[in-house]
Amino acid sequence: MTTALNTILKARSVAIIGASNDPSKRGNQAIRKLHADGYEGAIYPINPKASEILGFKTYTSVLHVDADIDLALICTPAKSLPDILDQCGTKNIPGAVVLAAGFTEAEPDGQAIAEATLQAAQKNNVRVIGPNTNGLFNLHNKMNLVGVQDVEPGNIGICSQSGNMMLALATEAKRRGGLGFSSYVGVGNQLDLNLADYLQYFGDDDDTKAPVFYVEGFQEGRAFLDTCRKVTQKKPVIIYKSGRTEAGQVAASSHTGSLASSFALTRGLLRQAGATVVEQSDKILSIAEGLSKLPVPKGGRVAILADGGGHATVTVDALVDAGVELAELSSETIAKLRQLLPVAASLTNPVDVAGGTDEDPSVCADCADVILADNNVDILMIIGMYGGFAARFNPALLGNELDTSQRISELSSKYGKPLLVQSVYAALRTKPIELLKDAGVPVFIWPEPAVRCTSELIAYANARSRNAASPLVMPDGPVAEGKYILAKITQESRAAFYEHEAKDLLAAYGVNVPGQFLARTEDDLAKVVEVLGNGPMAMKIVSHDILHKSDAGGVMLKISGEGAMRSAYREILANARAYNPDAHVHGVLVAPMAQSGVEIIIGVVHDPMFGPVMMFGLGGIFVEVLKDVAFRALPMSQADAREMIEEIQSSNILDGVRGGVPVDKTSLEDLMMKVSQLALAHPEIKEIDLNPVIVRNDGYDVVDARMILNSKGD
Amino acid sequence: MTTALNTILKARSVAIIGASNDPSKRGNQAIRKLHADGYEGAIYPINPKASEILGFKTYTSVLHVDADIDLALICTPAKSLPDILDQCGTKNIPGAVVLAAGFTEAEPDGQAIAEATLQAAQKNNVRVIGPNTNGLFNLHNKMNLVGVQDVEPGNIGICSQSGNMMLALATEAKRRGGLGFSSYVGVGNQLDLNLADYLQYFGDDDDTKAPVFYVEGFQEGRAFLDTCRKVTQKKPVIIYKSGRTEAGQVAASSHTGSLASSFALTRGLLRQAGATVVEQSDKILSIAEGLSKLPVPKGGRVAILADGGGHATVTVDALVDAGVELAELSSETIAKLRQLLPVAASLTNPVDVAGGTDEDPSVCADCADVILADNNVDILMIIGMYGGFAARFNPALLGNELDTSQRISELSSKYGKPLLVQSVYAALRTKPIELLKDAGVPVFIWPEPAVRCTSELIAYANARSRNAASPLVMPDGPVAEGKYILAKITQESRAAFYEHEAKDLLAAYGVNVPGQFLARTEDDLAKVVEVLGNGPMAMKIVSHDILHKSDAGGVMLKISGEGAMRSAYREILANARAYNPDAHVHGVLVAPMAQSGVEIIIGVVHDPMFGPVMMFGLGGIFVEVLKDVAFRALPMSQADAREMIEEIQSSNILDGVRGGVPVDKTSLEDLMMKVSQLALAHPEIKEIDLNPVIVRNDGYDVVDARMILNSKGD
Repeated sequence: MTTALNTILKARSVAIIGASNDPSKRGNQAIRKLHADGYEGAIYPINPKASEILGFKTYTSVLHVDADIDLALICTPAKSLPDILDQCGTKNIPGAVVLAAGFTEAEPDGQAIAEATLQAAQKNNVRVIGPNTNGLFNLHNKMNLVGVQDVEPGNIGICSQSGNMMLALATEAKRRGGLGFSSYVGVGNQLDLNLADYLQYFGDDDDTKAPVFYVEGFQEGRAFLDTCRKVTQKKPVIIYKSGRTEAGQVAASSHTGSLASSFALTRGLLRQAGATVVEQSDKILSIAEGLSKLPVPKGGRVAILADGGGHATVTVDALVDAGVELAELSSETIAKLRQLLPVAASLTNPVDVAGGTDEDPSVCADCADVILADNNVDILMIIGMYGGFAARFNPALLGNELDTSQRISELSSKYGKPLLVQSVYAALRTKPIELLKDAGVPVFIWPEPAVRCTSELIAYANARSRNAASPLVMPDGPVAEGKYILAKITQESRAAFYEHEAKDLLAAYGVNVPGQFLARTEDDLAKVVEVLGNGPMAMKIVSHDILHKSDAGGVMLKISGEGAMRSAYREILANARAYNPDAHVHGVLVAPMAQSGVEIIIGVVHDPMFGPVMMFGLGGIFVEVLKDVAFRALPMSQADAREMIEEIQSSNILDGVRGGVPVDKTSLEDLMMKVSQLALAHPEIKEIDLNPVIVRNDGYDVVDARMILNSKGD
Repeated sequence: MTTALNTILKARSVAIIGASNDPSKRGNQAIRKLHADGYEGAIYPINPKASEILGFKTYTSVLHVDADIDLALICTPAKSLPDILDQCGTKNIPGAVVLAAGFTEAEPDGQAIAEATLQAAQKNNVRVIGPNTNGLFNLHNKMNLVGVQDVEPGNIGICSQSGNMMLALATEAKRRGGLGFSSYVGVGNQLDLNLADYLQYFGDDDDTKAPVFYVEGFQEGRAFLDTCRKVTQKKPVIIYKSGRTEAGQVAASSHTGSLASSFALTRGLLRQAGATVVEQSDKILSIAEGLSKLPVPKGGRVAILADGGGHATVTVDALVDAGVELAELSSETIAKLRQLLPVAASLTNPVDVAGGTDEDPSVCADCADVILADNNVDILMIIGMYGGFAARFNPALLGNELDTSQRISELSSKYGKPLLVQSVYAALRTKPIELLKDAGVPVFIWPEPAVRCTSELIAYANARSRNAASPLVMPDGPVAEGKYILAKITQESRAAFYEHEAKDLLAAYGVNVPGQFLARTEDDLAKVVEVLGNGPMAMKIVSHDILHKSDAGGVMLKISGEGAMRSAYREILANARAYNPDAHVHGVLVAPMAQSGVEIIIGVVHDPMFGPVMMFGLGGIFVEVLKDVAFRALPMSQADAREMIEEIQSSNILDGVRGGVPVDKTSLEDLMMKVSQLALAHPEIKEIDLNPVIVRNDGYDVVDARMILNSKGD
């Protein structure tokens, strides 16, 4: 498959099936564009009626071409596809781009045509891009089958479910200058090849430094995550996922027919896999510019070399907002800067040259060199007015300024550290600015895009090392006690676990659950006191006919002493009978009251797109009202568990607030990893819900646990 | 003052003090630029040594000019200022722009020179802009004293504490096209004229439709708020406040020497005054473009007319994120659209033309006309690909497309409703796009800036009507009981109120405080039972030597019955003695336990920049950890109180969660307004803290209240 896409995008020969002499048709435009761009491969127009199109000899079908064909661009209608793919198969053409729409349920016979087309493709071993795509290009192969004008070759890849979004990125790149593209694939309906396949291609493609994905809906979510985890070890992957909101999903779904998992979940999983998730489309290109041009930093400490206080202040505010650390310059660096700059200059980070470069711009390169040499600095941002010295002060400075740009552009590779420039003069595209851009330095007009770029670069560096250093913890398989508990529930044809069963299963995977005793008769309470002590106890009804235990009066808390427990037992049973006279009551679960601490929730669900996913959050209003939760796909790494704990917005509550002590995060991580083991060992459990777990500075108590099996026949 | 600035910015004659023949000097550049731009007023270079500069006759001093001078641009060093201002005063020059730096504490003799300069200015009745400014321009007066190139006249005003920021806006406007500026003032150190004065000018200036303020620090915060409230009734005011973060404040402060109030507070107060607060500098111009060009909408329901699903989805996501309502099109509108568009089109909002405009772009204007005519629609966004029909499909469509642009540009005024365009082709500045822009339609390359513009426009419309409809509630003056309580505390030379005094004062302003009884002896508890009943009670030590009552064991809760109250009384006193044997104990305050509800906090502080400010938030972690609070300047309106309640992120907790009932927001508003009355009637109280108040569905309980007087001599 990788090989097929590689052949397709680097095709040395293209057949245009449905080639046309009408200049408004794609079957004409594609040939024109290939020719105009100097495509070096062979072009075979297929048209049974014309003898020549745009000077190229035509063929009745691909079967009449007496040479190998790497790629077919199929411009004919949907219903023609099965026959054409048969011919392509006979001819051993590895791939076909299908432009036609008409393959979805919404269209007449769409579903049937789609099935026949897919069968023909598989039978003939022809991989299909589309249908309903505007095509693809590989500018390094001079092969532009979309026909879009004015795209420059470069190292940003695009894979998009919206042709307009590719066009938007291309026109914006042209407006900015200094940016270009490697390949583009219009994904279309993903009838055969899907987003994971394309990601694999861009990951392997040496011409692509940073692939950008515009995604409306995944087809093989888990395969995409797995590929993404591998690719991001080599290069950054930038993803915009549209349909973040419910209304947006409706709009996207009417467009591509695919329904999405919740955005928060998707974002968490993509970041876990190392991807750079961009939430606003107008930020995609800035981030791609930085990530495609800059080396991966070794740390996250940023220094600013500024000309003018206004933009430096804006930059510092934006860096702090983004959680980026400001570098502390060494005393040697400060001493060297003092030699270079006027007395009024600020020599600590942000460094302000205070006019010290106005008469000799090369001082800017001198300062940048000094700052980048500092071991306390991982990234340098040159901020403010660079590139306008000649324009602003004196045209005679231009030579100096161009030399300075050249020197600045060499510093990043000299030190192996990222260097970015923000300048007011970028809007005017002055010569010193253009030199910087052409030499591979990202240049921004405003501080905020430069900061976003910087913070995403740091996040990518962190994610890459995290995934390299902390492997996914795979399951050991089900333990005997686990199999026994599951078998018992299945035997009783239940889907829901009793609370004590869920806790027993947790214990079987090493989770530390509080002592518990299922009292089946009032006299059992004597044994409770013997085994668990005098309390205070929490007592809860156990009945799979009573889901909402509290509503049924089935929960009593803080009960101390055997006598009180006996009367609580009677009261709970009476309440249950009053609530539902037909309920089958299994007993009353007695457990010591949890000590006070912070309530958290750990859940596992099976997402239809991405498979098993863990959710973590603080209990109560934090989950229910503030929706402050983190998601990770399972299996996950120990580092993933740690990041989930740090990722939630209310994370500092776990560090101890209002005089409280910090909770024991190590045991919390350990708990999450054990729940992960359990969930992976028993994929037949469709939902796990530990809610709440009370976490303290010396461990945790699982106060309540619910689990539900997959219903057979669901 | 307004008159002075009006004369200054519309000056019919300018003296350049320190005029020079050196082209690198401001005293030369200013004359060159005035001449080049065709300034129609008189230019008087002042230079005692040269006889002619750039063809203009020079004068030894302004006193030698035999005509009125409206404005002096002073290019000479700081120490020359007092004498020069004396001369300006003698000549009756109403205003002077002072470029020189050297007036701050950080500079040698700076403070002394600043004082002498200010005295000279005031004595001579010369208003000073700056010092340490790069100047000002009024392009409608062809008077550009900054010398910045390539700024086009238009209707955006700029007032900035950073010259670079003006330059950034100007270069970005040039890059975009279709945008221009009225006047610019570089604020500098605000020695005399300050931001409030400039806002007044821009408010009165008919050439300015939307003033933009880049602010590092206010000098007269309250005056600015008052002016802003008035100006925003006429036009939007756009403010970027830099130094949002602590590190940013340090950077800004080293730059301008002004320290800032917290950003959250400043933002709350500016929005209360009707301002549009922008938090990212790269968004300023987009928002200014929309707000300066578009009519104020009558409601907030947005319709989308899209060409291509990708950008429509992005737009819907961004609108929902921004809390904007999507319009529901009437059935008549849908029926009319069905006549205009192909079968595949989506006729509900977002409307997707599905290629229905490709062959005849005028259909886009037809659809826009139909949608804007719908009474359910307040704002229309045309999204996607408009302006590229000729470029993309067929050059012969250009005429049709230009006519269509013309028609689209007329729709906004036809219906009095805002219309915005986002198009991929805006990046290429095609002719139909340029026509739209020149005709006053805001056009954006990406959906997000268009959405921000839309949401800020709606927010401005809402703030304007809120401030028009809901007047500030002014204080009635102190009530007798209030004066009595204050007098007693002052007499005892205390700063801190006892809790019962604070509650008594609240009661004096109509706040409903729970019954309370200050027990001074154990036997008083018999009276407590008589007056307040058997409890359960909260009992708290009253001693101004014990601030942390709980730590001292001075608080006991849920005490019922006289016997228990007596023993609690003894225990509290014993604890207090153990905690601090020297503490003077005033008694033990007994009050019924509050019923359960939602904890909130209401505070009033006197901000050094903005005066009395109310803070509102939910209690506990919401304030302490999540910093989720709202601020308003006092006096405030009833609508302000309501908005504070809605503005906090955790506001939906007040609507009832986890089975709870909604709290009584009307009584909460009423409480806030009464606390406002109290604070305004007694400005000598520097801090008021009601923490917590427990709010229920039938009222509230003020559980604890602290107040502190201004210490004399502080």
